Amino acid sequence: MKTKIGIVGYGNIGKSIEKNVAKSSEFELVGIFSRRDKSTLHSPFNSRFFEQKTLLDNGFCEQIDVLALCVGSAFDLENSALNLATRYNTVDSFDTHAKMRGYISELDRVNKMSGTLSFVGCGWDPGLFSLERALFSAVMPSADPQTFWGKGVSQGHSEAIRKIKGVKFATQYTVPKESAIELARSGETNFATRDKHERVCYVVLDYVGYLGNCGKEPSAEDKLELQDRVRRQIVEMPNYFADYDTQVYFIDEKEYLENHTKMSHAGQVVAVENEVANNRANVKNYAEFRLKLESNPDFTAQVMLAYARANFAMQKEGETGAKTVLDVPVKYLISGDCLKFV
Amino acid sequence: MKTKIGIVGYGNIGKSIEKNVAKSSEFELVGIFSRRDKSTLHSPFNSRFFEQKTLLDNGFCEQIDVLALCVGSAFDLENSALNLATRYNTVDSFDTHAKMRGYISELDRVNKMSGTLSFVGCGWDPGLFSLERALFSAVMPSADPQTFWGKGVSQGHSEAIRKIKGVKFATQYTVPKESAIELARSGETNFATRDKHERVCYVVLDYVGYLGNCGKEPSAEDKLELQDRVRRQIVEMPNYFADYDTQVYFIDEKEYLENHTKMSHAGQVVAVENEVANNRANVKNYAEFRLKLESNPDFTAQVMLAYARANFAMQKEGETGAKTVLDVPVKYLISGDCLKFV
Repeated sequence: MKTKIGIVGYGNIGKSIEKNVAKSSEFELVGIFSRRDKSTLHSPFNSRFFEQKTLLDNGFCEQIDVLALCVGSAFDLENSALNLATRYNTVDSFDTHAKMRGYISELDRVNKMSGTLSFVGCGWDPGLFSLERALFSAVMPSADPQTFWGKGVSQGHSEAIRKIKGVKFATQYTVPKESAIELARSGETNFATRDKHERVCYVVLDYVGYLGNCGKEPSAEDKLELQDRVRRQIVEMPNYFADYDTQVYFIDEKEYLENHTKMSHAGQVVAVENEVANNRANVKNYAEFRLKLESNPDFTAQVMLAYARANFAMQKEGETGAKTVLDVPVKYLISGDCLKFV
Repeated sequence: MKTKIGIVGYGNIGKSIEKNVAKSSEFELVGIFSRRDKSTLHSPFNSRFFEQKTLLDNGFCEQIDVLALCVGSAFDLENSALNLATRYNTVDSFDTHAKMRGYISELDRVNKMSGTLSFVGCGWDPGLFSLERALFSAVMPSADPQTFWGKGVSQGHSEAIRKIKGVKFATQYTVPKESAIELARSGETNFATRDKHERVCYVVLDYVGYLGNCGKEPSAEDKLELQDRVRRQIVEMPNYFADYDTQVYFIDEKEYLENHTKMSHAGQVVAVENEVANNRANVKNYAEFRLKLESNPDFTAQVMLAYARANFAMQKEGETGAKTVLDVPVKYLISGDCLKFV
């Protein structure tokens, strides 16, 4: 008996889940549910597309064991989840840290009323990194685990740049500062935001579309002026860039398409317990967890599928409610024999 | 209400648990239970000592929430556990991988009959490393996680050398081969035992006690002969050394006591998913978990106490049986708010 998966949302993560389900003997795809017009959607695996709202209309709940919610956190994932959890068990990779508590508490109420089970924040951060921060804190009580992201592409920051007028393409790399990582490895935990990461942006401007008079190439002076304006709008953007050292490079479309369309990412969690001896702090216990990923959405999809497996197992044991990765024993993430890992 | 801990065995790990309990506001030590003569035992914290067998005689089960089993795996930990689990909830760091399955299945039967809860293999390997191997396998289905130990002191191998006639002191360092770690990082998983680690031994010989005639210093020739014999006994020892490249250094007592009495250790788990592109295997996903510990027993004690906390929490939910770290949600390892780690 295969575990029957439904995918909600057909962006990068939805497509990666589809690809992983297609090559798995354990999962079966019931369908992809999207708010977009079906005629604009094409699946390399000939998957079936449905309108998202049909999930609430008809009898899909009998056919789907776990819904993988692949709507971006910025695109109203919370409301989709709250609606769908009335009928479905769900797994998502919701990643807005600041809204996590509120989301979990609302979702838990819906789950408990509906007898459903939802796993939230099942990516790599939140997700695997959450698990490691908690684990490190549990076994190293005096440590304050530090998280570094990158070097890698932040989809959210890239998107924020793309919304600026005159920008055609943009990729933002989050780059951890080596000096800060070294300090964290020696036990330092007191960092300002600016100390830990810098932001490096590659931007293609649409000079002709934005500045051109009747499609004519604008003057070099006009181009520089547009660059200055966009650079200022980026580096001064609150939350996204204002608290960081930000570098902005303007490049042409060819270079951009050749070098800056990958979705690689990386990150690490570092935890240190120090001990004072001879008036010096020495590292007593050191723990590090590190990831390097060629495709952020592909890996996130793999994590979500492991938690979909766990969701199905825990449903069968009668669990309901909204859970995070901290609530799920690792044994449920595995198909088959667990003791070989012990 | 503090969680009431009993310690069974007063070696390095037992002493570390005692030290950690003493500085914790969450745990309380009921007593230390040992098979050794009470008059030979001294506690820097004025802890109370009892004979181990009193645990089965009288009413300690009412007073103890969790027993920390700190008897070495080589010293009949299994039988102690099977006896004590008839009345107590237990946590141990049993580390004989080859006997793990049998131990768990016997212990589980006792736990289920007695309504007790036992957590086994709660150190760093087995323990945290088991958790990471399983986690990596779950989210990276095509990876085969590789474990490297060291550089660090193996208590078991050091002990095996100390049992050779003529040896006064010995410390064995397990040293991972950098070349193998590099290969593992690129996705190689096919290693012979000899490829991954080498063993480096520092040995002090008791020349006078073993060779001396009436306490006289033996000749240089006799000394070299003893060295040759001991070296051969070490490098040819089955299981412990025969499958490894082993280096043996004979040093004097002063150098030994100055440089080779620490109990530091380290290790890492590496997992790689490769992808073939342009006829070359490229690293697609890379994950690494790494520990570096100044004191192996101190850290093991910290892990055991975190699992003692979880044991107490899961007892209260009615759980019984023998469990490994894979069965325990990480939230139970933490006292207080979990969501701050998400």
